[in-house]
Amino acid sequence: MNIIKVSSRSRTAAVAGAIAGTYRENNCAEVQAIGAGAVNQAIKAAVIAKGYLAEEGKPIVFVPSFVAVDIDGDERTAIRISIEPGSLQSSLLGVDGSSRVA
Amino acid sequence: MNIIKVSSRSRTAAVAGAIAGTYRENNCAEVQAIGAGAVNQAIKAAVIAKGYLAEEGKPIVFVPSFVAVDIDGDERTAIRISIEPGSLQSSLLGVDGSSRVA
Repeated sequence: MNIIKVSSRSRTAAVAGAIAGTYRENNCAEVQAIGAGAVNQAIKAAVIAKGYLAEEGKPIVFVPSFVAVDIDGDERTAIRISIEPGSLQSSLLGVDGSSRVA
Repeated sequence: MNIIKVSSRSRTAAVAGAIAGTYRENNCAEVQAIGAGAVNQAIKAAVIAKGYLAEEGKPIVFVPSFVAVDIDGDERTAIRISIEPGSLQSSLLGVDGSSRVA
């Protein structure tokens, strides 16, 4: 499974499609982003992908972690987001944007 | 349960402590951020909190969603991250920064 690399210029709809497509094939997906702009695009794309997959009865959750990556010889810290199967409750919470404290 | 509001100037360690403290009390927590800088700080803090809670045998996962919020009369779209109990596997994946595709 390839890691989906996201930059600050990535289109969220395209990344969301890649996440959903990878998840449909593998029942998991990995997204990686370096820097605030890229992390923001990655999260927005992940929320959109969550909506797509929820409609198909596939609830997902996110497990982010730090990973050290080598960029042209410099070590940078990336955020890697592992996308995994979630519970139905999580899915329902997200589809309409509501939450249990709303 | 209060929503933990994060700005681009929030210190990640402080936010991580707030997330972990709220989660210990409620078995869930909610974080909200508007804008790329704030979302990045929120995710970094969430990863740090995940490490704290994993050490206590409390694996967590993240369910982000979009929410419309009113800021001085203007409607803005925030990212709200719901923090929920996860599986032990998720916890172990995150603690050392590795992932199943590494």
